[in-house]
Amino acid sequence: MGFKCVHHTKVKLESMQETGAKGIKVRWLIKEDDGAPNFAMRLFELEPKGYSPLHSHNWEHEVYILEGNCQVTCEGEKCDASAGYAVYVPPNAKHQFVNVGKSKLRFLCLVPHH
Amino acid sequence: MGFKCVHHTKVKLESMQETGAKGIKVRWLIKEDDGAPNFAMRLFELEPKGYSPLHSHNWEHEVYILEGNCQVTCEGEKCDASAGYAVYVPPNAKHQFVNVGKSKLRFLCLVPHH
Repeated sequence: MGFKCVHHTKVKLESMQETGAKGIKVRWLIKEDDGAPNFAMRLFELEPKGYSPLHSHNWEHEVYILEGNCQVTCEGEKCDASAGYAVYVPPNAKHQFVNVGKSKLRFLCLVPHH
Repeated sequence: MGFKCVHHTKVKLESMQETGAKGIKVRWLIKEDDGAPNFAMRLFELEPKGYSPLHSHNWEHEVYILEGNCQVTCEGEKCDASAGYAVYVPPNAKHQFVNVGKSKLRFLCLVPHH
């Protein structure tokens, strides 16, 4: 597959129905179906008080906060990450992203194909 | 290595001295030294009229434009990518990023370790 250059609003916004998640939607901006050989890029949107599941898995997350206020928990450590923060969650670390702000939280989250 | 959560301004801004590049600086937000097993996250800043080298290599780029106006060329195809655009450059495709705006162009660019 080839070159892709698209505004994120043209990529389908999907609900995330995972157990333990609340108020999350996601756009898969770049994925394996596009030909990306190693990792995928998603853009997450969390409503105020929304959160990702508190869980772990054997792959990492590389995250960049675009907008809003996120509390990131990782193995019990907390970080207040706002727009412009880069976050690395190692494989197998228990983690959660929570929107602690009054407006939408938006961040990029990249994961290896798994 | 463990959890990392840092504002990008706390990460060293480095000049990019590569042949064929002009007016580019980079911050390695998440890299192999942080323990990231598969890919790295960089934040590039291009001055107006700045550009990356016109070249190809056998790994891909996954890019998200944060700010400014970028003309992306990939195997002869051009795309005007502004803030909010996601760009995928396949391995071995000849490509270049050019700041065609009047202000700084900033984008994330992720690459597999190579």
